[in-house]
Amino acid sequence: MTFKVDFKVRDYECDLQGIVNNSVYFNYLEHARHEFLHANGVDFAQLTRDKINLVVMRSEMDYKQSLMPSDEFYVAVEPERISRLKFGFRQTVVRKRDKKIMLKALVIGTAVNERGRPFLPAQIDRLFTNA
Amino acid sequence: MTFKVDFKVRDYECDLQGIVNNSVYFNYLEHARHEFLHANGVDFAQLTRDKINLVVMRSEMDYKQSLMPSDEFYVAVEPERISRLKFGFRQTVVRKRDKKIMLKALVIGTAVNERGRPFLPAQIDRLFTNA
Amino acid sequence: MTFKVDFKVRDYECDLQGIVNNSVYFNYLEHARHEFLHANGVDFAQLTRDKINLVVMRSEMDYKQSLMPSDEFYVAVEPERISRLKFGFRQTVVRKRDKKIMLKALVIGTAVNERGRPFLPAQIDRLFTNA
Amino acid sequence: MTFKVDFKVRDYECDLQGIVNNSVYFNYLEHARHEFLHANGVDFAQLTRDKINLVVMRSEMDYKQSLMPSDEFYVAVEPERISRLKFGFRQTVVRKRDKKIMLKALVIGTAVNERGRPFLPAQIDRLFTNA
Repeated sequence: MTFKVDFKVRDYECDLQGIVNNSVYFNYLEHARHEFLHANGVDFAQLTRDKINLVVMRSEMDYKQSLMPSDEFYVAVEPERISRLKFGFRQTVVRKRDKKIMLKALVIGTAVNERGRPFLPAQIDRLFTNA
Repeated sequence: MTFKVDFKVRDYECDLQGIVNNSVYFNYLEHARHEFLHANGVDFAQLTRDKINLVVMRSEMDYKQSLMPSDEFYVAVEPERISRLKFGFRQTVVRKRDKKIMLKALVIGTAVNERGRPFLPAQIDRLFTNA
Repeated sequence: MTFKVDFKVRDYECDLQGIVNNSVYFNYLEHARHEFLHANGVDFAQLTRDKINLVVMRSEMDYKQSLMPSDEFYVAVEPERISRLKFGFRQTVVRKRDKKIMLKALVIGTAVNERGRPFLPAQIDRLFTNA
Repeated sequence: MTFKVDFKVRDYECDLQGIVNNSVYFNYLEHARHEFLHANGVDFAQLTRDKINLVVMRSEMDYKQSLMPSDEFYVAVEPERISRLKFGFRQTVVRKRDKKIMLKALVIGTAVNERGRPFLPAQIDRLFTNA
């Protein structure tokens, strides 16, 4: 079952075009990924305190339609193994009232240790297995 | 000559990892694009008031390294014609002290009129010609 | 009964001190005020399209304690009439797990019409009556 | 001589009213304070790494007029001693083209050590002397 996080657009997230600013989708996606990790026993803030940094290496985002003030939507998160040291998230932003996809994204990341060396802690590794 | 906008990292742009948050690069890139447009006689805010909305359709971002508090950097902007109705921006974020590329991006957009129909106003169209 | 809006801290709202950045409380308070207005039949975004701008004139904020990543909290909103043309909101940010007040605020505003003249539309006026 | 930091409004800082969002002034003020500290030998990010957190206790902000897209402005910073353990900043946001004050603020803070106990490190203490 796909993991989902519910959101509602807040007015301060909208820009002078009257729609959600492009950069804000990045915030939504990040929050949904962190909630996904939490739900799977991984605490991003705690990892950071333990000197393990999860970092984004690449993002691809397709903007289909714009969220408007007060729109309710969810962000879906699907993990996908990219390579031995890279993990990915397929994410979609879906407006609730008509199930329209507003945005599709692929976000690829890795984890780095205190010396900046990439490595995947076991608790992350096990979340991204090949289908 | 490549168009560049100078920036300095502000502490509030950094997250709990102590580095610039991923979403903030999107803000930097947007500001640099709007400055590029301004420098070429296109005022984003005025266009919006005239009911012509420039919208992002797709972004690809490769995060190479992280900006830290107080880092000085510039964002370079190179226009690239994508298709008849789509324009693109090749953008790089470069740290000044060592000329390291922190991020590379391709942002593809179009313009839509009041009825949401894509079209390129002449003042935009002329900025994106094929090499 | 006091009006309340539920929130959960998102990691991107935290700064390099590992706590919610001071400016973000302002976002929380604004969103709670707009939800209060919505619940009372006033749509901020629609008002804006109708060329009536609600504007903040003064804010006083007392920071008691800091919200941390994943904290759940609510923002309470109590309307208070300030003067004929000014309305106020008493707001508190309360952490749920121990009911601790994190922040207390007074936000004073007015409405201005298209010519920048202050005036209170009836739908706003009726929400701020003296006790 | 008053300490000043130059800024230019970025479009993404504007909200659906087409003006700089109220919360963004808080970002401007914070950045100007941190630049003031830097100019006086105090590095906020380094202090944080040393487990000394500068925290805001209270802010009072008077919004006079709204900054618009592309407006150039500066933020002035004047230190003011509040009490033995509290320091203050008088700050104004001034639009350059007509020297109009857009916002006046008083921000009061203190420093806390690793155990959350307030104390002023010498390097901070010496910046806030009574006139």
